[in-house]
Amino acid sequence: MSRHVIIVAGGKGLRMGGDIPKQFLPVGGRPVLMRTLETFYTFDPSIHIILVLPVSQQAYWKELCDTCHFALHHDIADGGETRFYSVRNGLAYVKGEGLVGVHDGVRPFVSHEVIARCYEAARQKKAVVPVVEVVETVRRLTEWGSETVPRSSYRLVQTPQVFDAALLREAYCQKYTDAFTDDASVVEAMGKKVWLVPGNRENIKLTTPFDLKIAEVLV
Amino acid sequence: MSRHVIIVAGGKGLRMGGDIPKQFLPVGGRPVLMRTLETFYTFDPSIHIILVLPVSQQAYWKELCDTCHFALHHDIADGGETRFYSVRNGLAYVKGEGLVGVHDGVRPFVSHEVIARCYEAARQKKAVVPVVEVVETVRRLTEWGSETVPRSSYRLVQTPQVFDAALLREAYCQKYTDAFTDDASVVEAMGKKVWLVPGNRENIKLTTPFDLKIAEVLV
Repeated sequence: MSRHVIIVAGGKGLRMGGDIPKQFLPVGGRPVLMRTLETFYTFDPSIHIILVLPVSQQAYWKELCDTCHFALHHDIADGGETRFYSVRNGLAYVKGEGLVGVHDGVRPFVSHEVIARCYEAARQKKAVVPVVEVVETVRRLTEWGSETVPRSSYRLVQTPQVFDAALLREAYCQKYTDAFTDDASVVEAMGKKVWLVPGNRENIKLTTPFDLKIAEVLV
Repeated sequence: MSRHVIIVAGGKGLRMGGDIPKQFLPVGGRPVLMRTLETFYTFDPSIHIILVLPVSQQAYWKELCDTCHFALHHDIADGGETRFYSVRNGLAYVKGEGLVGVHDGVRPFVSHEVIARCYEAARQKKAVVPVVEVVETVRRLTEWGSETVPRSSYRLVQTPQVFDAALLREAYCQKYTDAFTDDASVVEAMGKKVWLVPGNRENIKLTTPFDLKIAEVLV
């Protein structure tokens, strides 16, 4: 069954406090986004990689690829106004049957084991999401303040979220709502169940300068 | 108003995969627990520090203090069967009025700003907990599977959790239940509201080998 992965890199990177969008920041001397693409390529050199980038960043990205002699083949789709539209644009590059992963461009540290687990489970389950347990105590904000909730009932969601291509296409034909926070929630909105598999703790989303420091140890 | 801090270090450290309890593992060449005590000492040299340690680890700790020339004054209370009993044992060293913080021994990276914020707010609010926002999408396990929940309604809880001494003493006179996952939940069980203040992202709880790697960057 053919494998595709849509790598979404729409970030403006403002939380990092700099001018360069976070997906281009170097980690161990190499732009984050290249590391992410390489992780999927080394997992499966035949995987079809679709990179979703804001139009305004595509020239910069191509230049960066030249400078870094980054020759790994990938399609480039245009970023949309929100993540929903970005994924939908990427999905247009997926033809026919197969499995489609959707992955955050700023998660270079997903393990090959987790990628394999997600695609493998998706053959049967059609909608699979990697999750990790919550280490901290969790509180829920309420109208009158906040309350402790049992942390064992909660999971933190990572990517790649992997789906049957036909299912994901159908899901992304729906009208956009604010409740679509990730691909799983888009698929769930159709009444389809999502299957959870264990992610890996190192698979962090690089969003703050603190995360970049962590990334330097992980490379 | 006099300040106390109960530093709880009851961990057997099994998740780290080694023989040494996690609170004694070196970070930047110095045991985690010494770093934690030093953070509170440098915040306020007059703070009353109570360290709660399992009886079986106290001789080792004293030896470690001698070896490292660690002379920072602190009381030592006996660890209990669960965190609840450990804190209660520590609380016996707090006499009279004041503010009592309860802090995890394996959180050496709490900032002075956050410590100050918690003690300051506790003067008025009597029960204060530092929290951070959730970066990831959150799912809640349900009877039939799981569902996405709005992450903006959730917070991850850190320490120090700071309380009015009399209030915390009263709370710890209650009968223990499994719902007591942290000190805030013990105080809430009396019907008392808990006030939230911003924590700092670096204030992580060192529980896995991955966290130790992060710790090495943070020192």
